[in-house]
Amino acid sequence: MTEPSAGPSIDPPSRPIGRIAVCDVAPVVEHGERPAKSVIGEEFEVTATVFREGHDAVGAAVVLTDPDGQEHRVPMTRVNAGLDAWSATVSADRAGRWTYRVEGWSDPYGTWHHDAVINVEAGVDVELMLEEGARVLERAGAEVVRGKEQDAVVTRAVAGLRETGWAPEARLGAGISAEVRAELRERPLREHVTASAEHPWLVERERALYGAWYELFPRSEGARYDESTGRWRSGTLATAARRLDAVREMGFDVVYLTPIHPIGRVNRKGRNNSLRAEPHDPGSPYAIGSSDGGHDALHPDLGTFDDFDAFVAHARRLGLEVALDLALNCAPDHPWVAAHPEWFTTRADGSIAYAENPPKKYQDIYPLNFDNDPEGLYAEIRRIVRVWLAHGVTIFRVDNPHTKPLRLWERLIADVAAEHPDVIWLAEAFTRPPMMHALAKVGFQQSCTYYAWRHTRDELAEYGAELAGPAAAYMRPTFWPTTHDILTPFMQRGGPAAWKMRAALAATLSPSYGIYAGYELMERVARPGAEEQIDNEKYEYKDRRWAEHDAAGDTLAPYLSRINEIRRAHPALHRLRNLRFHHADDQHVLVFSKARRVYDRDDVIVVVANLEPDRTRDTWIHLDMATLGLGFRDHFVAHDLITGEHWNWSEHNFVRLGPATEPVHIIHVRPEGITGPR
Amino acid sequence: MTEPSAGPSIDPPSRPIGRIAVCDVAPVVEHGERPAKSVIGEEFEVTATVFREGHDAVGAAVVLTDPDGQEHRVPMTRVNAGLDAWSATVSADRAGRWTYRVEGWSDPYGTWHHDAVINVEAGVDVELMLEEGARVLERAGAEVVRGKEQDAVVTRAVAGLRETGWAPEARLGAGISAEVRAELRERPLREHVTASAEHPWLVERERALYGAWYELFPRSEGARYDESTGRWRSGTLATAARRLDAVREMGFDVVYLTPIHPIGRVNRKGRNNSLRAEPHDPGSPYAIGSSDGGHDALHPDLGTFDDFDAFVAHARRLGLEVALDLALNCAPDHPWVAAHPEWFTTRADGSIAYAENPPKKYQDIYPLNFDNDPEGLYAEIRRIVRVWLAHGVTIFRVDNPHTKPLRLWERLIADVAAEHPDVIWLAEAFTRPPMMHALAKVGFQQSCTYYAWRHTRDELAEYGAELAGPAAAYMRPTFWPTTHDILTPFMQRGGPAAWKMRAALAATLSPSYGIYAGYELMERVARPGAEEQIDNEKYEYKDRRWAEHDAAGDTLAPYLSRINEIRRAHPALHRLRNLRFHHADDQHVLVFSKARRVYDRDDVIVVVANLEPDRTRDTWIHLDMATLGLGFRDHFVAHDLITGEHWNWSEHNFVRLGPATEPVHIIHVRPEGITGPR
Repeated sequence: MTEPSAGPSIDPPSRPIGRIAVCDVAPVVEHGERPAKSVIGEEFEVTATVFREGHDAVGAAVVLTDPDGQEHRVPMTRVNAGLDAWSATVSADRAGRWTYRVEGWSDPYGTWHHDAVINVEAGVDVELMLEEGARVLERAGAEVVRGKEQDAVVTRAVAGLRETGWAPEARLGAGISAEVRAELRERPLREHVTASAEHPWLVERERALYGAWYELFPRSEGARYDESTGRWRSGTLATAARRLDAVREMGFDVVYLTPIHPIGRVNRKGRNNSLRAEPHDPGSPYAIGSSDGGHDALHPDLGTFDDFDAFVAHARRLGLEVALDLALNCAPDHPWVAAHPEWFTTRADGSIAYAENPPKKYQDIYPLNFDNDPEGLYAEIRRIVRVWLAHGVTIFRVDNPHTKPLRLWERLIADVAAEHPDVIWLAEAFTRPPMMHALAKVGFQQSCTYYAWRHTRDELAEYGAELAGPAAAYMRPTFWPTTHDILTPFMQRGGPAAWKMRAALAATLSPSYGIYAGYELMERVARPGAEEQIDNEKYEYKDRRWAEHDAAGDTLAPYLSRINEIRRAHPALHRLRNLRFHHADDQHVLVFSKARRVYDRDDVIVVVANLEPDRTRDTWIHLDMATLGLGFRDHFVAHDLITGEHWNWSEHNFVRLGPATEPVHIIHVRPEGITGPR
Repeated sequence: MTEPSAGPSIDPPSRPIGRIAVCDVAPVVEHGERPAKSVIGEEFEVTATVFREGHDAVGAAVVLTDPDGQEHRVPMTRVNAGLDAWSATVSADRAGRWTYRVEGWSDPYGTWHHDAVINVEAGVDVELMLEEGARVLERAGAEVVRGKEQDAVVTRAVAGLRETGWAPEARLGAGISAEVRAELRERPLREHVTASAEHPWLVERERALYGAWYELFPRSEGARYDESTGRWRSGTLATAARRLDAVREMGFDVVYLTPIHPIGRVNRKGRNNSLRAEPHDPGSPYAIGSSDGGHDALHPDLGTFDDFDAFVAHARRLGLEVALDLALNCAPDHPWVAAHPEWFTTRADGSIAYAENPPKKYQDIYPLNFDNDPEGLYAEIRRIVRVWLAHGVTIFRVDNPHTKPLRLWERLIADVAAEHPDVIWLAEAFTRPPMMHALAKVGFQQSCTYYAWRHTRDELAEYGAELAGPAAAYMRPTFWPTTHDILTPFMQRGGPAAWKMRAALAATLSPSYGIYAGYELMERVARPGAEEQIDNEKYEYKDRRWAEHDAAGDTLAPYLSRINEIRRAHPALHRLRNLRFHHADDQHVLVFSKARRVYDRDDVIVVVANLEPDRTRDTWIHLDMATLGLGFRDHFVAHDLITGEHWNWSEHNFVRLGPATEPVHIIHVRPEGITGPR
């Protein structure tokens, strides 16, 4: 035998177990160190494992505490008795810092109900059981605050249980009627109430989850090539503002502007990313800063702050929010370089380090060093953000946030939220999953995703399920089929059906999605060797001659308008966590649904997409009817919101998808058309 | 656009993100509210996600803090670059409350190494790269404490990098030699060191994980039926002590005694659980308490405390620990009932509530009520536990802990540990998974399991993988093929091959296992309608006439002895987290392995079992050679530790398993027999 050693005493754990076990509360992000998130009105499940020793019944509720400290109680339902699993659907009616906890308790009424039904039927201890029921309900009446009518329900039950003139079954019936049970579920008699830890929950405005974005380069909108001089005239904020009406007409919610600051002249990049710029090449707007100013200045070609204010005002009038690019890197002639060399990295030879990915160098950009003077640099970044907030920017699209410290973003987003709680930050990070998730956890409301590189049914279903699963408690995806940096081989070779399909999928799989100007025109010629546009707008002006295309009708603008119109009309598409996948026999056909109850109306959308619309596909699809809120033998009218066609659908349906027909069905389940088995 | 609302400010999260991201540390139990556990010398993996912004290299280590506050640093290895996943194998060399944390840091040497190799080869900034390497290594020499020889390694590297007479490749080589890299891995230059939270880790003695138990009813050992009087003479602690030699000879480590206290006379159960006892029926030892005393007393038939002390002393001499049953319920005539009616539940009619499972009642037992006088009852329980500790009991097998409050166990186990840190508690809970896991989390060192009801290959592999997975950080299973309460239909119908197989599997799948007296004799007749023994020892004496069976040789004792001998000799079988399953073509054949490195020797065991040994099975098995520490084309000598046979084995092997031969192979991979491809 091992002799007891003189070991140290065992300290009690940091949080003793409660009288009732309340475990595995979810969602909880990073052990509660970061908040779970939702937007106003966004439903999600709070789950927990709740149990006690022995055979007595337990109950559970989620207690939501709003930003004023008011508590809101939501009863939980036991969804798996064998695993003691409980669940409730909750949501918040306003933004702010909420918290929630789960309370578990011993339920004397439930215990008695269970035992009394068995014993009275078996004739065991009948009188005793009925009297014990009366006493439990007396306690329930005395100890829990109820309205007058609610009280009468309990009092009647007590009287019935003691009505010795009645048969035992009738007396028992008085104690366990549906009315009594409902009252005791709503206002239970609770013993040994035990609470979980209080978990942080951040509620944000709906645009944090749901919105359609349109990206444009302001200098291109209204830019004109002068044949006589052979030179370009830059677009301005004033000319770009004229484009906003079309953006709004297409139904977008957010207009996102690439950087609008002065562009470096030192080592400026030329057309198609060439190392030498020609004299009149405008350079990349991401190489920020020159003698004209830095991140707090406007490029002189674009106009003045008055023009910017007018641009924002026009956008607001149209109901558009303005999102600005925040690209924290500098051209070699950015004012910070001379004023604050300590904000950059000095190499062994005394030079300032360029951005590089060895052995490649990006000579037009100096990355910032956030460690030499963290407080000084932070104050300056905070200042420039304030400049744009003061001019009406409500959203920042942060360029490459994953190359800057996470703690910078955590601090900046929190500091800004203290003054402007409705500001939204989009993380434009395309990197390894842990960083993408961490950026969302430290505060970014929106996250770029791998959507552009997910094409097959398995890829899309797996990725969609991942994003709509536990990660949805802190990360909100945005789906972009292309950007000014991304033109995948799929889009390069895809025809109009492919471009429609990828936009429609982005817009329906994800409540937030975005389009880069020129998507309407299916611009799809890549620079050889790169997966981005040839003659990329990053390095030159682009006059897209919108009016000519609109007149010719060779544009997807009407299709995008229809997609955005459908999104607006259907609340089911404003959510992520409701995404569910269904089966299709053809492996290139993706089927998914979203359902959402708004007041007493169920909005149910089914999307069916041909993922390889180079050829028309005929296939059977198989709907999980329960997921749609239907019985498995129900029939319903399937209303295709793209074409306006109607079909009679049930569990198994035949579909035919583009290019010969539309490549995507967006089906509204018409509630008036639902019929049961015939 | 939504106008910003006057929402509340967003408080910073409770634990700001670090300069380096250190996330997903595992194992962490209940958000760190309960400790992760191991026994002394038990290896396990600590894993974490560690990364930083940008492209610079990071490093990571686990820091173990022993009970005296001394820190021990274990470098981590990046096991998945795409997921930034790091891992290290750790263990503790002594018992007590340890903690661990993960530290991540920026690694300037690693960053330089990566860039320098690429740039020097590409001829980019060669002189600058070499000088920067020299400076990084100068810092590494100046900032990190090293021994003289270690320092010379660094100094030589710096000199080599600056040796302008050498070719660039040679200078680079001086900076990135294996010697320099090993030194920098062991004693890295670290920037921005960021630590995770400190996680609790409880290290216990080896018996908490590993041991073979033998259960007996002391009153049966030495009991004799007197034909002349027609009455039984009870066995005593003195006669039971004589059985200990055989128990030890079979190789067991723990002798577990069912309750040894006075047994209630009121409502005593008779033979085969009949409601009326005959005058001389001894009653169930679980109906504790009578006028002879309660949980702190010995049944007068068994002897005195001197006899108990002598029993314990004899067990110790044999190297056996004594485990006592702690069954916290009372016969109606237990002294507590009169002295402390508040420790029980009084019903509406004034009676004390029996144990019941409506409509069934257990009239010989009153359950305790832990809520009326929690402090008073706790003090009394603490007192009776002290009584048995003072008499040399080192292990408590707790009967039905899941019918008592979790907080009772958390408090009791911690309080006892403060005085006797080596005491072990086994939770005899057969209930829903959440309670079984919670009992382990609040302190039980050992947990009964569903093993008795897991028979098929899928059941055993799934359950084994579950227990050896993340749950192994807090729950330690014990496998019992039968107990005095459990005799499954499989065991009822199984012949000797089945009884051998189920014991051998229990003993090799789980480092802790147990046998109930009579297993040697394959006692397998059930009481009709019950899954337990007929003429159950719970209600009567049982004279098993060991000497006669030993003489006749109709006992499994030699087999059990061999199993226990194999367990002792093979450290691989002392562990749980090393359990790995392999494939067999026959679905009724289970194959698993356990490997463990002790000093510089690998102990590798492969077990192959016929799960339905009603007929002999021939099949191919397929070993995952890497799991065994072998190359996939290696051959080795497979030494069957049951029969002593040797075979030449490789990845694919043919086996034949009982009843015509032994039903289970326990194979030792003979290290001297391993040969590579031929």
